[in-house]
Amino acid sequence: MAAHKLCMIPGPIEFHEDVLQAMATPATSHVAPNFIPALGESIELLRQILFTSGQPFIIAGSGTLGWDMTACNLIEAGEDVLVCNSGYFGDRFGECMETYGAKVTHLRVPIGESPQLAAVAAALKSKKYKAITITHVDTSTGVLSDIKGIADIVRKESPETLVVVDGVCSVGSEEIRMDAWGIDVVVTASQKALGAPPGLCVMGVSTRAIEVFKTRKTPVANYYANWNRWLPIMNAYEARKPSYFATPAVQNVYALHVSLKQIVAQGVEKRFALHKEASLKAKKFIHDLGLKLVPTSLEHAANGMSAVYYPEGVAATDLLPKLAAHGIVAAGGLHVEIAPKYFRIGHMGISVTEPERGHLDATLNALKISLAECGYKGAL
Amino acid sequence: MAAHKLCMIPGPIEFHEDVLQAMATPATSHVAPNFIPALGESIELLRQILFTSGQPFIIAGSGTLGWDMTACNLIEAGEDVLVCNSGYFGDRFGECMETYGAKVTHLRVPIGESPQLAAVAAALKSKKYKAITITHVDTSTGVLSDIKGIADIVRKESPETLVVVDGVCSVGSEEIRMDAWGIDVVVTASQKALGAPPGLCVMGVSTRAIEVFKTRKTPVANYYANWNRWLPIMNAYEARKPSYFATPAVQNVYALHVSLKQIVAQGVEKRFALHKEASLKAKKFIHDLGLKLVPTSLEHAANGMSAVYYPEGVAATDLLPKLAAHGIVAAGGLHVEIAPKYFRIGHMGISVTEPERGHLDATLNALKISLAECGYKGAL
Repeated sequence: MAAHKLCMIPGPIEFHEDVLQAMATPATSHVAPNFIPALGESIELLRQILFTSGQPFIIAGSGTLGWDMTACNLIEAGEDVLVCNSGYFGDRFGECMETYGAKVTHLRVPIGESPQLAAVAAALKSKKYKAITITHVDTSTGVLSDIKGIADIVRKESPETLVVVDGVCSVGSEEIRMDAWGIDVVVTASQKALGAPPGLCVMGVSTRAIEVFKTRKTPVANYYANWNRWLPIMNAYEARKPSYFATPAVQNVYALHVSLKQIVAQGVEKRFALHKEASLKAKKFIHDLGLKLVPTSLEHAANGMSAVYYPEGVAATDLLPKLAAHGIVAAGGLHVEIAPKYFRIGHMGISVTEPERGHLDATLNALKISLAECGYKGAL
Repeated sequence: MAAHKLCMIPGPIEFHEDVLQAMATPATSHVAPNFIPALGESIELLRQILFTSGQPFIIAGSGTLGWDMTACNLIEAGEDVLVCNSGYFGDRFGECMETYGAKVTHLRVPIGESPQLAAVAAALKSKKYKAITITHVDTSTGVLSDIKGIADIVRKESPETLVVVDGVCSVGSEEIRMDAWGIDVVVTASQKALGAPPGLCVMGVSTRAIEVFKTRKTPVANYYANWNRWLPIMNAYEARKPSYFATPAVQNVYALHVSLKQIVAQGVEKRFALHKEASLKAKKFIHDLGLKLVPTSLEHAANGMSAVYYPEGVAATDLLPKLAAHGIVAAGGLHVEIAPKYFRIGHMGISVTEPERGHLDATLNALKISLAECGYKGAL
């Protein structure tokens, strides 16, 4: 195998050695006494990380599956959903909602902006929404949405509206307090700031949302994603009892378990602070190089990643291969309207919680050198 | 970690060391030049293993997700589906079909029997079915269905009916020739005879079924499982180009890739023969002990597993812990009507293709000793 390049994209991120070792756990039955506690305890640890007394789910699949889980279990055909749309992932979550019969209204913001609280309040006044979705960090733009502020407004203007957060690129790097802030659903995945390899859809669902689910009038129009099948399974594993609906991704769960234990052991608050610190460092470096972030203000820029416009005269086809030659894997643009104009760097997980690894410094230094190699004057 | 017990259940199975090492591949972008060929080549290898020129899919999720993929993409609401039901998994696949609006007719057989060709022919004469589903090996009973025979009858009686095989517990251990036999869909998962850890839904879909999909009249009522989203992704990876819909389970794909290469290198025909040989050995040993298989005849008993009734006076609570104490993990019963009366042993993958590992011998010896410890006279 070629030498490992640092994976500094906004997920998958670099994994701790103990997490990788858990991925190589020998064959283990999904109902074995040495597997059940790994899944059971992971459910408990997620409650601590999401600050909720609600119901976590850990299911084999990508983060995208969490959108289906939200839509098919909580929305009934014909119900209205308000999508706070700050980029690519807002569009997609909206499409997923429509697949299950939701009538979707998009509250779009210009690229680089985050949803305005006044606009959310106005939208909530105009119509009764079953749910509002917010992309906490839109991985396509690095924009951070104010989920606490939006949840406050929902509770004031339309208390029954479910607050759904797409936290795929935020859980583990951005502050989320489900119960205190009144958030009903958080969708995420294993491979971003939760620090494990991809392959698991991870969710937190409030007790209130579970009640809404239990009183739905129409059947759930999905088999694999149906909470009626998964609730007894999650409850059984948490009670340390074997149970079966579909075979869990045993090794991935072992790996997630190791990472969740590390996160809670270091302290969730400490983790938020370290991500903020690393992000400020990255963004100052980027600013000092004369580069411009996609988010229009630091106030609504994500702490786990940076989306950065190429400077004049530098193209994607130039910069990314040069970064790779210096051992750093960064990502290109994803937002369709500006994709060729910007790149993205992830700074999550062990790359920032264990700064002694030097991942971020190596990345920023490689960025400067690569820009200089591209002939960018600001880096000389 | 405690000493590893041999995982001799009907999946997950024991993994090759190289497969496990691939699970511990360091963080790699899902669009990295060193990942794309692993997924692309896995798609090509699956064509060889399934003997098809059709379209394989490799998606993060459990095998169960493959049922949703089949139902939501190929069946439209109101269409009739015939389920050849040889146990637990027939019931479940039927429920999944109904979730997507299918009108399901179950062709049930008594426990331990396989579907009769004459009954299938009669059912096909009575109604026009969009699809027929067959559980190739019902993991709950160890019954092997004659998918070649059934496909022949379908092609004769109702040529447009899609032949859907639940091959979760058969792909890699039982002979399947999709194109030659006229099979349209094979659903499987990574953790059985394909020899990789759980976490991937794996499918093969015939060119004919893809055409049926492309001409469907109603939209696909699922977002994550929608082939419209996955077909371009599978095509892109096979063409060695990056593409994105949902993040693949990178490490699991690396592991599957290693295992698929091993399977093709050893030869698929050879693999079938080795599974048959191991199965005969296991079943003769079981017979000589005076135990009875759940399948009523060797003719329709699976080659990758054995479902065995406990002898008089021996209970699940006695035998399984004793086997575990001897280092062998076996599985209890799963078919609701007889669950406490039988147990299941898997003999798939490296445990039979590399007999020098001694897995099967160790399992059978432990079975004999454990039965004797339970006071079973036939084992003394």
